[in-house]
Amino acid sequence: MALTVVGSIAFDSVRTPFGERDRMLGGSTVHFSLAASFFTEVRVVGPVGDDFGDDDLAVLRDRGVITDDIERISGGETFFWRAHYEYDMNVAHTDDTQLNVFADFDPKLSDAAKRSELLFLGNIDPELQRRVRASSEAEFAALDSMNFWLESERDSLVAAIGEVDCLMLNDAEIRELTGEPNLARAARAAMGIGPGVIVAKRGEYGAALFSSEGLFAIPGYLLEDVQDPTGAGDCFAGGFLGYLDSRRAAGDSVRDPAVLRQAMAYGSVLASFNVEDFGTDRIQRLTKDEIEARLRDLQQITRFEIETSPTN
Amino acid sequence: MALTVVGSIAFDSVRTPFGERDRMLGGSTVHFSLAASFFTEVRVVGPVGDDFGDDDLAVLRDRGVITDDIERISGGETFFWRAHYEYDMNVAHTDDTQLNVFADFDPKLSDAAKRSELLFLGNIDPELQRRVRASSEAEFAALDSMNFWLESERDSLVAAIGEVDCLMLNDAEIRELTGEPNLARAARAAMGIGPGVIVAKRGEYGAALFSSEGLFAIPGYLLEDVQDPTGAGDCFAGGFLGYLDSRRAAGDSVRDPAVLRQAMAYGSVLASFNVEDFGTDRIQRLTKDEIEARLRDLQQITRFEIETSPTN
Repeated sequence: MALTVVGSIAFDSVRTPFGERDRMLGGSTVHFSLAASFFTEVRVVGPVGDDFGDDDLAVLRDRGVITDDIERISGGETFFWRAHYEYDMNVAHTDDTQLNVFADFDPKLSDAAKRSELLFLGNIDPELQRRVRASSEAEFAALDSMNFWLESERDSLVAAIGEVDCLMLNDAEIRELTGEPNLARAARAAMGIGPGVIVAKRGEYGAALFSSEGLFAIPGYLLEDVQDPTGAGDCFAGGFLGYLDSRRAAGDSVRDPAVLRQAMAYGSVLASFNVEDFGTDRIQRLTKDEIEARLRDLQQITRFEIETSPTN
Repeated sequence: MALTVVGSIAFDSVRTPFGERDRMLGGSTVHFSLAASFFTEVRVVGPVGDDFGDDDLAVLRDRGVITDDIERISGGETFFWRAHYEYDMNVAHTDDTQLNVFADFDPKLSDAAKRSELLFLGNIDPELQRRVRASSEAEFAALDSMNFWLESERDSLVAAIGEVDCLMLNDAEIRELTGEPNLARAARAAMGIGPGVIVAKRGEYGAALFSSEGLFAIPGYLLEDVQDPTGAGDCFAGGFLGYLDSRRAAGDSVRDPAVLRQAMAYGSVLASFNVEDFGTDRIQRLTKDEIEARLRDLQQITRFEIETSPTN
């Protein structure tokens, strides 16, 4: 079984009301692959510069992530992002972005990466996403994007969305994509572009899944300690697709509504751990037992029973 | 069994992206009592002016709401509110507020109202809420408020909260009340003031319950047609407390965590119907069967099963 992720590898400098860290390992593929590594074999496709060290690589390898497809650009520097969060940690305030080697990223899939059954197209230029999708044999491809591409490369993005099976965006982005302020209608309109599965990420409020069976909604796992929300969406995607790939490998359909619901729950769980510490720190020391315990907890905090009709 | 609600009765003029209505029957006690009327006997305490007609009264009476404690102020006019909503219907933009008879509201509970086992203190001056609470024999009292009182009458509001069993506020208000940006911590701090049950209303994102057993979270019921969100929070409270009173009358404890969870679900269901049309229109034509069907639907869209551990 295998899952390939294509996107950014970065160094992040982040300040939140709870602390500050400089040049932590980050980027969408890093957060995604560490989360997915608890479920399946993950292969990372992304560019780094000379400043990307063996210790950075070791963070991925220690979790079994396959790093053969990481492209080292000689003489280049790794993508760098600096941001801060106020008390409303749903919003990242970007202070500096240095694309560096990411600016000329031209993803090339190795034969092994092409053969991955599942593919995650991280938030990159939609024309690159289309090229990667076309070269991949994946039976199920998911795509993330952001308002920047919606506003600058709308036609390309719509074409890219039409070529994948699953769209994962923030709810505000799904509204903006479709011009439909109501999320349920917006999701239906997005399905009209092509994907049979739409995942609306809603930050601390959880996420909603729209698929052939209709709607599934999961609230956010409410934590008392949120240190750094960076990467939560990517960890959600990693938990979601990693779990789907494990079920595919076990002979189940990744389009089975019950399987998709469970994948949403695992995505929520991985995202909830990620924000408990800065960068990748919490996921690096995460255990399978902790994941399973929080999954049971999440099920417990969202469950209610129905009595015989009490209305009068 | 009986539930008493104290607060505003109003005429609302509302414009949303989907239409506009003038001088509809509204106010927190109206929305609350219509929602609660599906579960229990509700008694409304609130002031109206000469402009409040028999047809307005009939809306309440047709649902079995007891209107004996509605106080008609001769020569006065009923509370009037004008507002509009943009596409983000989580935020009401107030264009005009005429308190009229509500400005000098001095709630007096009849003997029957005093004997109600459950009490809902709608959003009024916290000193009035305290006086009503002190004169009531209710075994379970819940309180709503708003940022206006938090900022102008903070000490009174904290005292009022300390005298009730259940606090129902928007999540932002719970954060503001406690000065704690994290909702889970804020809810814990609010419990420290006195109430054993905290309900955090989160608009379209649903609601969270904090009680002796810990946390319960329910996502909003995602609708394709939202016409007018006015009164959704009061319908939530009405469904919540109405259901609790029906269970109390059946011999159950309103503090039972499983009962509280079910009450949260009914609150969500009633709120979701309310926003499907302007003012009280949808709730007036609502049926018990529709409520039960949507409750099952809400359970279905929030449920996931757990497989044997798939992590590796």
